Amino acid sequence: MVWTSGWRLASAVSNAGGLGLIGSGSMYPEVLKEHIQKCKAATDKPFGVNVPLLYVNIESHIQTIIDEKIKIVFTSAGNPLKYTSLLKQNGITVVHVVSSSKFAKKAQEAGCDAVVAEGFEAGGHNGREETTTMVLVPSVCNAVTIPIIAAGGIATGRQMLSAMVLGAEGVQIGSRFAISTESSLHDNFKKAVVGTKEGDTILTLKQLTPVRLIKNRFYDEIKKAEERCASADELKNLLGKGRAKKGMFEGNIDEGELEIGQVSSIINSIKPASDILREIWEEFVNYVQYPLK
Amino acid sequence: MVWTSGWRLASAVSNAGGLGLIGSGSMYPEVLKEHIQKCKAATDKPFGVNVPLLYVNIESHIQTIIDEKIKIVFTSAGNPLKYTSLLKQNGITVVHVVSSSKFAKKAQEAGCDAVVAEGFEAGGHNGREETTTMVLVPSVCNAVTIPIIAAGGIATGRQMLSAMVLGAEGVQIGSRFAISTESSLHDNFKKAVVGTKEGDTILTLKQLTPVRLIKNRFYDEIKKAEERCASADELKNLLGKGRAKKGMFEGNIDEGELEIGQVSSIINSIKPASDILREIWEEFVNYVQYPLK
Repeated sequence: MVWTSGWRLASAVSNAGGLGLIGSGSMYPEVLKEHIQKCKAATDKPFGVNVPLLYVNIESHIQTIIDEKIKIVFTSAGNPLKYTSLLKQNGITVVHVVSSSKFAKKAQEAGCDAVVAEGFEAGGHNGREETTTMVLVPSVCNAVTIPIIAAGGIATGRQMLSAMVLGAEGVQIGSRFAISTESSLHDNFKKAVVGTKEGDTILTLKQLTPVRLIKNRFYDEIKKAEERCASADELKNLLGKGRAKKGMFEGNIDEGELEIGQVSSIINSIKPASDILREIWEEFVNYVQYPLK
Repeated sequence: MVWTSGWRLASAVSNAGGLGLIGSGSMYPEVLKEHIQKCKAATDKPFGVNVPLLYVNIESHIQTIIDEKIKIVFTSAGNPLKYTSLLKQNGITVVHVVSSSKFAKKAQEAGCDAVVAEGFEAGGHNGREETTTMVLVPSVCNAVTIPIIAAGGIATGRQMLSAMVLGAEGVQIGSRFAISTESSLHDNFKKAVVGTKEGDTILTLKQLTPVRLIKNRFYDEIKKAEERCASADELKNLLGKGRAKKGMFEGNIDEGELEIGQVSSIINSIKPASDILREIWEEFVNYVQYPLK
């Protein structure tokens, strides 16, 4: 949720009854501190922080999280062995995001309290094995005993129930909340997502780190480069620095990197996070009744 | 289900309470006739025939199906406009396999009675948009009014229920029945599937027709060719003729094309189709009770 989930979105989700997460991956250390403090002021409900473990200022982020007495941390993109013990010694619940059973087992061994099993459908950086939520969730359930939160392809109450039928205890919803009033994303990007149809996102840049994004002019350049067998270095140069910021935060729809999940095609409105959460919950609760008929 | 579903598997599934399908795509015209007649002798339950519309002897297959008074046909890989009317004039129920809402609408307009919405997880030939079952099924539900059968990533009762929660009226199960006692696949192939782990299948040959298969020595050759930017013609030459037959029917695990779904990783036994169907059904029925708690 880089460039997406600051204190406004996190507190709105928590106030509505979800567990809001601050996405720290795009924040300087002092920016994270500010967002945590503003989030505390905006909600008295629990909220968490997502930390990509490969983040350059990771030590500083971890210290901020401990100092600010954050209770729940979601870690991703890295080895859970490195910080899980430290976080847990500080009374923090640790959930690690994984794309395979193998990584789920490692997270469990590292002492994580739960895992997010994130399928191929998910937006942004993604696993190399391309396992979808329908296959990944039951597989991770068979591999570990800690609770599983499903992610990837979930934007409605029925998709949430579907993932829970597969064995998840809950779901992590990214893309749908990214296209809320309170998310930090540029309006151009939110409108671009609302305009997408099926097949408009793709998992690409597999030579570097696979990432799901909207097929735009920047993607066309990647595609052309890949078609002429560009090297990883050439692709790195093409990607350059700050592409995601350019597209998602600054609203340059043509030249930016537009990270969003495959479920983008069924997101067709920008609305307050509380409305999104209520609609998902109502559909979920109504649909749970279905098998009673 | 090329090289997989002949009269033995189709009749076993129908006798167990499913709708068995004869996969005609790998059969000469006279072989299809023989399989239909043997299937009739082996079951008094309904069964159907799957016909890939791009099949070279399609006219002959359609005539055989009409002559033999088959009641249900599943069409795939081609334009449903071409034969749907003719089949329906002969009292045949027509179901078309699609990988997108766009193709689902075309199938509905062509007069099909239902569609199979087949996700990225599925084995063998697959859609270009890479939409997974979790996203595809709700999307197709929004696009058409005819019933939807979900396929791709479904091998257990809970996956079946999960797909039905998404809006499917039923499911089409390929890979799980492919690894049954009665399927025509070579034992080497069945054992290879049982041995797969997560990430062992991949959607490849996207320059030609995307196909999901097991990563074996043949796939390594594809990968190397793609890495040096081989042309479509070079890939066609590499693929050659009869690769699927070689791997799946003749059991050459290294050099053959081993088509199977991503759910391969959770298939860990070869057993009679009736056992497979009963286990799926029992898990489904038991799990439907869950929301009652």
